[in-house]
Amino acid sequence: MVKPQSISGFPEVLPGAQAWFEDRLHALRGLFRRYAYVPLETASVERIDVLSAKGVADKEIYRLARLRADEHGHETEYALHFDLTVPLARYVSQHQGRLTFPFKRYQIQKVWRGERPQKGRYREFYQCDLDVIGVDRLDPHYEAEVLVAMHHALVLLESPRHRFRINSRPLIEAVLAHFGFKPDTHTEAVRILDTLAKAPISVVYAQLTKLASSGPATEVLALLGTTPTLDALRQVLPAQTQDTLDSLQRLSETLLAFGMPESAFGLDLSIARGLDYYTGTVFECVATDSPELGSICSGGRYDNLAARFQKRALPGFGASIGLSRLLMPRLEASACAQHPAIPWVICVANPAAFGVAAEATRILREANVTCELLPHHPKLGHLIRRAEQLGATHVLLAFEAEAAEGAIVSKRLADAHQEHVPLTDLVAHVGANQPLQGKP
Amino acid sequence: MVKPQSISGFPEVLPGAQAWFEDRLHALRGLFRRYAYVPLETASVERIDVLSAKGVADKEIYRLARLRADEHGHETEYALHFDLTVPLARYVSQHQGRLTFPFKRYQIQKVWRGERPQKGRYREFYQCDLDVIGVDRLDPHYEAEVLVAMHHALVLLESPRHRFRINSRPLIEAVLAHFGFKPDTHTEAVRILDTLAKAPISVVYAQLTKLASSGPATEVLALLGTTPTLDALRQVLPAQTQDTLDSLQRLSETLLAFGMPESAFGLDLSIARGLDYYTGTVFECVATDSPELGSICSGGRYDNLAARFQKRALPGFGASIGLSRLLMPRLEASACAQHPAIPWVICVANPAAFGVAAEATRILREANVTCELLPHHPKLGHLIRRAEQLGATHVLLAFEAEAAEGAIVSKRLADAHQEHVPLTDLVAHVGANQPLQGKP
Repeated sequence: MVKPQSISGFPEVLPGAQAWFEDRLHALRGLFRRYAYVPLETASVERIDVLSAKGVADKEIYRLARLRADEHGHETEYALHFDLTVPLARYVSQHQGRLTFPFKRYQIQKVWRGERPQKGRYREFYQCDLDVIGVDRLDPHYEAEVLVAMHHALVLLESPRHRFRINSRPLIEAVLAHFGFKPDTHTEAVRILDTLAKAPISVVYAQLTKLASSGPATEVLALLGTTPTLDALRQVLPAQTQDTLDSLQRLSETLLAFGMPESAFGLDLSIARGLDYYTGTVFECVATDSPELGSICSGGRYDNLAARFQKRALPGFGASIGLSRLLMPRLEASACAQHPAIPWVICVANPAAFGVAAEATRILREANVTCELLPHHPKLGHLIRRAEQLGATHVLLAFEAEAAEGAIVSKRLADAHQEHVPLTDLVAHVGANQPLQGKP
Repeated sequence: MVKPQSISGFPEVLPGAQAWFEDRLHALRGLFRRYAYVPLETASVERIDVLSAKGVADKEIYRLARLRADEHGHETEYALHFDLTVPLARYVSQHQGRLTFPFKRYQIQKVWRGERPQKGRYREFYQCDLDVIGVDRLDPHYEAEVLVAMHHALVLLESPRHRFRINSRPLIEAVLAHFGFKPDTHTEAVRILDTLAKAPISVVYAQLTKLASSGPATEVLALLGTTPTLDALRQVLPAQTQDTLDSLQRLSETLLAFGMPESAFGLDLSIARGLDYYTGTVFECVATDSPELGSICSGGRYDNLAARFQKRALPGFGASIGLSRLLMPRLEASACAQHPAIPWVICVANPAAFGVAAEATRILREANVTCELLPHHPKLGHLIRRAEQLGATHVLLAFEAEAAEGAIVSKRLADAHQEHVPLTDLVAHVGANQPLQGKP
């Protein structure tokens, strides 16, 4: 016998949790459709020369090999994708002539990373990506649109309290240049500033002084320590950075016009995520109540999505939610029921009444009512206990006498109130006795 | 530069087709939930010792290997699942104590097979499985329930004209035994009879005579040639097969009680699919209008789902739709629009009116209206043409003068009728001008 067991890093949940997860995914899709984003699903695999483009550590990629009966293995040139950005770039470049631009797409799929599993890290997990891609240019209002859509997505995912921490590559470079950091030190300086949340300030300071003298290091840390607003930066920075500050100001205004709460976003000069990849606005979002989750949504502006595939520029703005990382702790906890409740349960109280029970089941399901038909059992009490276990509010009992008249007995479990209901009135009866909950 | 291209056997479709597919999956989930099935999603991979249990050709399995920077490859003990039955067996056996039995689950996931791709065959494809699993026993009415649910599923998938061809292992064995085939020839005889639809009858006859003499071969083919009903078989077969005929009779009656149209199912003694795996009822469903698709849904009854994992019997009945095989020809054809239509499009006619346009966009999206905001363009005609390309029925034009009054101009594209609409009346205005289509 083989022992059935889970594989580390490949999470699975119980059906009640899965039902909750499916409902959330459906809500996300509805949200993104209202924002006029179209769905995209790409193949789970890409050619290895496409995947290894982004310069990720190769060991994180799961390559496919064919298992042969006669030899040990046979590698293919394909590997499972590790994110949804590389597949998007390949897909958009491939189908450019058949897509509408700006191409606004959502993509909710599993991705795989062959890393050593640890708490909160998965080898197989869901990502939820939103991107807007232009040809040659992209209007800045789409940045605000993506951020607002992701704000509402996080609300749907029951993480309503969060804060988008926004930075911009031109801005942080202007700050560093203003205080005397040379251009070739900026990438490393940003990486160091990104550790501010975790490392002691003395360590950050020591590292910064290796890139510039103690003066610039002190001044940059002093400025970041004040968590400056755009207006404060306008006083400090030279005139040539006003354009950058103006565009961040417009982003802020558009976010408010689109309905983003003022408490849900703010400037944060220490955000470095992907500043080597992104070229403009960049952001990370943290759950205010669960900072231990780290970044629950991140992304930014890039100049050319598909530079590896084509010369024509496809500038874009994208955001990604690590769905599994955000939801799996809740899904794995017993908060979700093992089974969604089934409000109406039909019981065959007498074997000769099976036909009426089957007919009642058919009528309810065709009327979009969730119900279950339990097979006959000699003890009625046993059937009613099973119905209660399934979460029933009512049982419909098929007895032989009522069956002869084309009727069934409806019993409300809360107070044992019984009614004789002809099948022709069954849909109306159920409509008049719906449980209060509106959701499926 | 890398050439962006699709990988043979890993299908991808355009966003309009993907939207249609997503809507169909949602409809299927709703259907199965009404039938009180719970969702299950298992990991994409299984341990190889779990997967290779079923005795499939090993070369069809895609094994995962880790790509390393310093060496050629490094195989793992995991492989992508090639169906949803093996994962179900492993999952149910593993979580038995936490599941409600009979365990009724639907599972719609991608599966992978490393076969050489050909027309209508994929290496990555969606399957949609429905199974009911009992502990020790399973009431026969669940067989009818699964078949009826799959009938409705095929209707939702726009294949309303189809026929479930039903056979049963005890029945075909009784027929073979009755005409003189010895028990050890039954499996092979069934395999030969399964070729009747494609091979000339003379070839089938010649093969059958190798298993038994010409008499039994002639009699079996003569009986199958009449496509006998249960009543006809009752005349021919000996008394000890009456139980088998009775249970098929009950299945037929329950199917009708559950609402299955009489034209959508029938007895077919030549169905052999999986008779070596299944132990009772077995079926294949063909699309009446598209027989070239082959079996679009199949399955049957098994005595023990998880015999490799445990001693306690888990009898079940299952059915599977090959979603990709059924839908991909339609999805790849241009029948689906490249983009779902967006009925309301907001245009920034004057840059100073951007705030009102953004506010209108926010109001509509919060009221669950799908809409798009187009950035300013100096030519109004250009904006309206873009709105028409997106499938708009109305444009909302943000002009500076109306913006000052908190209003926007609504223009119906069909007849160029214009209205001045205060933002406070916008939701009511849209409600009064909804396009006729009800679906998203």
